[in-house]
Amino acid sequence: MSLRGLSINLATVRRQFNLAQAVDACLALGITAIAPWRDQIHAIGVKEAASIVRSNRMRVTGLCRGGMFPAADKAGLAAAIEDNKRAIDEAVALQSDCLVLVVGGLPEGSRDLPAARQMVADGLAGILPYARERSMPLAIEPLHPMYAADRACINTLEQALDLCDLLGEGVGIVIDVYHVWWDPNLDQQIARAGAGGRILAHHICDWLVPTRDLLLDRGMMGDGVIDLKSIGTAIQAAGYRGHQEVEIFSSENWWKRPGDEVLSVCAERFLTTCKLQEKPATGK
Amino acid sequence: MSLRGLSINLATVRRQFNLAQAVDACLALGITAIAPWRDQIHAIGVKEAASIVRSNRMRVTGLCRGGMFPAADKAGLAAAIEDNKRAIDEAVALQSDCLVLVVGGLPEGSRDLPAARQMVADGLAGILPYARERSMPLAIEPLHPMYAADRACINTLEQALDLCDLLGEGVGIVIDVYHVWWDPNLDQQIARAGAGGRILAHHICDWLVPTRDLLLDRGMMGDGVIDLKSIGTAIQAAGYRGHQEVEIFSSENWWKRPGDEVLSVCAERFLTTCKLQEKPATGK
Repeated sequence: MSLRGLSINLATVRRQFNLAQAVDACLALGITAIAPWRDQIHAIGVKEAASIVRSNRMRVTGLCRGGMFPAADKAGLAAAIEDNKRAIDEAVALQSDCLVLVVGGLPEGSRDLPAARQMVADGLAGILPYARERSMPLAIEPLHPMYAADRACINTLEQALDLCDLLGEGVGIVIDVYHVWWDPNLDQQIARAGAGGRILAHHICDWLVPTRDLLLDRGMMGDGVIDLKSIGTAIQAAGYRGHQEVEIFSSENWWKRPGDEVLSVCAERFLTTCKLQEKPATGK
Repeated sequence: MSLRGLSINLATVRRQFNLAQAVDACLALGITAIAPWRDQIHAIGVKEAASIVRSNRMRVTGLCRGGMFPAADKAGLAAAIEDNKRAIDEAVALQSDCLVLVVGGLPEGSRDLPAARQMVADGLAGILPYARERSMPLAIEPLHPMYAADRACINTLEQALDLCDLLGEGVGIVIDVYHVWWDPNLDQQIARAGAGGRILAHHICDWLVPTRDLLLDRGMMGDGVIDLKSIGTAIQAAGYRGHQEVEIFSSENWWKRPGDEVLSVCAERFLTTCKLQEKPATGK
């Protein structure tokens, strides 16, 4: 079966492969889309990274990551905005589908979540004109509520979509099943996102029971409790026709296995657990 | 300053004290309210437990816990309903303010969250007449989304309150700051809960950064990032005049310290970090 529609977020094999190695390993399996992280790009330089991507005709489904806006002071927020503009430049150089934004949590010493959320809105407004001029979609990734303090204070699709409505064109969302699978309003907000043309990426992995670490114990699709087909179907029904991107942080399991094996399992599970019947684009 | 308004959930000192010891240690500090767990009651028998509570004039702000409805089959759900009726009996014997319900997660092998949620609604409907006849309020505790799979598939105040609306009189909610502090709709849902007279308990502790364990790394009030005064103020503004109940699961810190020390710190932090100016009841 075809691996069309599968993308590999390179965090999944970050301990095993650099960018060039990851691209070779993906192509060897017939996987033609990736989502790299900025540190993987910086390690070899943007020019070299763009050349690797282009010469291998890889689709880049997202660049991870911009965001991290909340700061202790205005200088901090301004610095974050500047760094996000560099991330936009890099995403453009890689011809990425979007720049993924993990928006940031509470500034050091703060307990003021509403203030942090306002800084996120301000930061986004600060980079949006720059992104629009370069036609680079900004993809807000709501993170699981367990990361509200230290990684992202945007924690539900509803909240991310409210921000999108506020900001207007040029900004959308990432639906990562790991972050949103529990949400009682999931179907409703997926439909809302699709109706607004806001779904820019769809990340997959699984929620393990038990989960032994808040950050680094994500599971391979099929090994946990997330109903991936059901969520995928809702996302497809909302009009999304892009890739499903495997993103697994797993310090004690998948990061310890050979990279080729990990990619091979990703491909197999994509086919058995995630892949949907292809449908024609809705024109949205 | 007075410790009026402070209750100790006995999970906080479960490794150090049995019920009688905990009551003595609380009274020595001037703490006159507790919330025991069923295993602590069963260890000495309900009659003895009720006698200890009554003879010491302790207020029981909640009995933990009923719930755990989702099951692999109908027999499992029926057994859960029977067990919850025993829990109601015990809560009545202790003259508890309410029976706290942790509703349960996915049945073994299931990925069907909507079905689990339906089983929760069915289970609640199954015990509600029994609870009403005995005038024992049922308190649904929405748990943090990170427990959706294995502990509770009711994960937001909004969802819990939708259930309350469905079920009618005799059921309300627990607001535990640990589970809800991240919620973008928190203030709105607290106000909704208060307007409906649904706030039955207010649990406090803190969210540590980093959090090293999903279950057993809760922090003492003031040691984390939760804006306790702000949430407490919203709960008070919604009409709640009950206790703030300290509930801390902490296998590597507080459970390893002498119980008297733990209670003493609870009392101190309640006064410095949580206690609000007392307001007259609103009559709600």
